[in-house]
Amino acid sequence: MKILCAKTQLMAGVNTVSKAVSYKTTMDILQCILIEAYDGKIRLTANDTELGIETVIDGQILEQGQIALEAKIFSEIIKKSPDSEIFIETETNGKTNIECEQIHCSIMGKAGDDFTHLPEISRENMVAISQFDLKETINQTIFSISDNENNKLMTGELLKVTGDTFSLTSLDGHRISVRRVTLSESYPDIEVIVPGKSLMEVSKILSGEAEEQVSLCITDKHIMFSFDRTRVVTRLLKGKFYNIEQMLSTDYETKITVNRMDFLRCLDRSSLFTRESDKKPIILRMESDRMEIMISSQIGSMQEQLAITKEGKDLVIGFNPRFLSDALRSIDEEEVSVYLINSIAPCTFRDEDRKYLYLILPINVNNADY
Amino acid sequence: MKILCAKTQLMAGVNTVSKAVSYKTTMDILQCILIEAYDGKIRLTANDTELGIETVIDGQILEQGQIALEAKIFSEIIKKSPDSEIFIETETNGKTNIECEQIHCSIMGKAGDDFTHLPEISRENMVAISQFDLKETINQTIFSISDNENNKLMTGELLKVTGDTFSLTSLDGHRISVRRVTLSESYPDIEVIVPGKSLMEVSKILSGEAEEQVSLCITDKHIMFSFDRTRVVTRLLKGKFYNIEQMLSTDYETKITVNRMDFLRCLDRSSLFTRESDKKPIILRMESDRMEIMISSQIGSMQEQLAITKEGKDLVIGFNPRFLSDALRSIDEEEVSVYLINSIAPCTFRDEDRKYLYLILPINVNNADY
Repeated sequence: MKILCAKTQLMAGVNTVSKAVSYKTTMDILQCILIEAYDGKIRLTANDTELGIETVIDGQILEQGQIALEAKIFSEIIKKSPDSEIFIETETNGKTNIECEQIHCSIMGKAGDDFTHLPEISRENMVAISQFDLKETINQTIFSISDNENNKLMTGELLKVTGDTFSLTSLDGHRISVRRVTLSESYPDIEVIVPGKSLMEVSKILSGEAEEQVSLCITDKHIMFSFDRTRVVTRLLKGKFYNIEQMLSTDYETKITVNRMDFLRCLDRSSLFTRESDKKPIILRMESDRMEIMISSQIGSMQEQLAITKEGKDLVIGFNPRFLSDALRSIDEEEVSVYLINSIAPCTFRDEDRKYLYLILPINVNNADY
Repeated sequence: MKILCAKTQLMAGVNTVSKAVSYKTTMDILQCILIEAYDGKIRLTANDTELGIETVIDGQILEQGQIALEAKIFSEIIKKSPDSEIFIETETNGKTNIECEQIHCSIMGKAGDDFTHLPEISRENMVAISQFDLKETINQTIFSISDNENNKLMTGELLKVTGDTFSLTSLDGHRISVRRVTLSESYPDIEVIVPGKSLMEVSKILSGEAEEQVSLCITDKHIMFSFDRTRVVTRLLKGKFYNIEQMLSTDYETKITVNRMDFLRCLDRSSLFTRESDKKPIILRMESDRMEIMISSQIGSMQEQLAITKEGKDLVIGFNPRFLSDALRSIDEEEVSVYLINSIAPCTFRDEDRKYLYLILPINVNNADY
C-alpha cells in the first residue's frame, strides 16, 4: 500500500475511528486502525466488536493495499507531524513507513486479514435526524444510565421512534431521563436498546450541526449511524426495556418554579459537604415563596434560600444533590418547574411540550435531619 | 473573631497561603489556614514546618480573634461563594460561620494555639530582585533538581549572590542548569541551598511583574521572600553544594547552532518512540550543515534532518531526549548554540553573556545503535 494524504484529513479520520479502538484488550488486532486503499477510496476502520466505526478520507492511492496499525502510536505520529502531506508506505513484512517533510518514521503493522470488518447493514428502514438533535438528546440523557453490568439493560438507552417523535430514555434505578424531539417526517415505530457507551462515542464524533443529517438504520442485532463519510455500527442490547409509562404520573400536590442557574449553583456549593460514600441528602423545604436548601454532614453544614413560585402544599423532601444537578444541567430553560407529590414520591422536572422529563426518587429523611 | 472581607480578597489570600498547606500529613493543624484578626490587620498563615507563607488581606475587623480552618473545605467554600462580601464569625466552641448573601455555611475550626507561626527573620542582609527575574530563574532551573531524597542537597538549588549577580544552580547527577541575572545594585556574597519544592511554590505565587520587587532575607537557617503583603519563609538545606566550576569547561571541539523550536519539535516527536523505562537514547549525527536525529526502539524508529551551522569536527552523540527538551524549553532565544567535545563528554548549551548554561551528560551509544 502506498498513499498520500493531507495531515488534516488523516488526523480527522483517525480521531473519528479511534473512539472504537479497544485499549483494554489483550487482542492486538482490536488495538489497531485498519487502513484500506482500494478502488480510489482510503478507508479507516476500528472495531472493538461491540462498536465499530469506519470513515473515508481524501487522499491519493499510489498503490492499492491495506495495513492494520497500532492506533495509539499511529495517531500520535500523525498528531505530531507538521501540517503537510503525509506519505504512508508498507513493506512486505508489515513494516510501515510514515513520511512527512524531513521526517521518516517506521512502525510495524499487521496484514489485517484477521481484522473484523463492520457488518453490512441494510439501509431499508432508515430514520433521518439532525446531528444537533441526536447529539443533544444523547448528552441530555446519558448521565442516568447505570454502570452496573449486572443490570445490562440499564447500561443502555431506549431509542424509540413513534410517528415523527424520536426519544431516548435512560434509567438507573434512582431516576429516569427522557428527551424527545420531533423529526421532519413520520416513520414506522421502532424500539431498540442501544449500549450507552456506544451512544457516548457517537455523540463525540457528531458535529452537532442542525443542518447536517444522521441516518439511523436498524436491524435485529445492530444499529448503524451514518453521517458525512462515516458509519458507526453497534450491537443492540437484547431484552424488553422497563415500562416507564406506569411510573410517570402527571398528578402533583406541589409545583414549584425556580431559577435554574441559581438552583444549580446552590447544589454545586452543597456538594462541598457531601462525600460520595456517605450519601448525605440535601433537604429542600418549600414554603410560600421561598425554598430553603439545607445540608449537614461531618464536614459542616450549609443553608441557603432561593426565591420560588409555588402552587399547592408546603413540602420538605430530601434528594441526592448530584441527581438534581445532573437534571438541571441538561435543561436549557432559564426557569424550571418541579412537580412533587409528597416526601416519599418521586419528583419530576418537565416542560409543557413534553420535550424533556427527569424523574428523581427522593431519599427518606428523618425529622432529626433538618 | 468577626470579620468582613470581599470574596476576591479572601480568595487571593487563601490561594497564596494554600501553597504551604500540607495535605499529606496526619497532623490536623498543618492542614489548616490560620486567620488572625488583631490590631486592624487580617492575616492568613499556612505552615507545613518546612515552608511557611503568610499574607495580609483587606477587610473589616468587627471583633478581634483568631481561628484555624481546614484549608481544603474553607478554600472551596470561598471559591464557590458569590462575588460579594463574606462575613466570618467564630463561636466559642470553634464553630465558624461563613456567610455570603443568602448562604450560611458552618464548619468546625480550631483555636489555633498550637499553630506554628513563621519565625521572625531579621531584615538586615536584604537583597532586592525583581519578581520577573526571580520567577524566571526558578522556572528555568527547577526541572533539573533531583527527586531522590537520598541526595538531599540535589533536591535543592544553590542560590548565590556575588556582587550584582544573582544565580540559581540545580543538578541531578546527569545535568546542570545555571541561570544568572544582574541585580540593580551590589550586595555582599551569599551562598545558600534552598529546597526545590519551596522555590516551586514561591514561583507560583510571584506575580512575575518586572517592576515589582522581592526582598530576600537570609539567616543561618532560613530564607525569607517578602513581596506585596506576603512573606514566605523556608528552611535552608545544610551542607556544602557541589563545586560545579570544575565541571564547566569552555573548551570545545564542535559547536553547532540550530533553530530552537525546530529542534524541540523534533525531540517531542522522538518521545513517541521512548518509554521512560527503557531509556533509549536519541542519536545526533552532526555533519557539515545538517544534523540527523535518529531514534530506534521496540515501538518503531524515527529519523529526521535539521539544518545547522557547524564549527569544528563532525560528531555522533546520544542523549536522553527529555534532558535536551528541558534545556531547550528554558531558553528564550530563536537560535541556540551547543558546545561539544566528543561522544562521551558533556555538551553545553550556553550564551555569550553567561546568562544561562545547561550541561548535559551524553549516553554511551554503540555503533550498532545507529
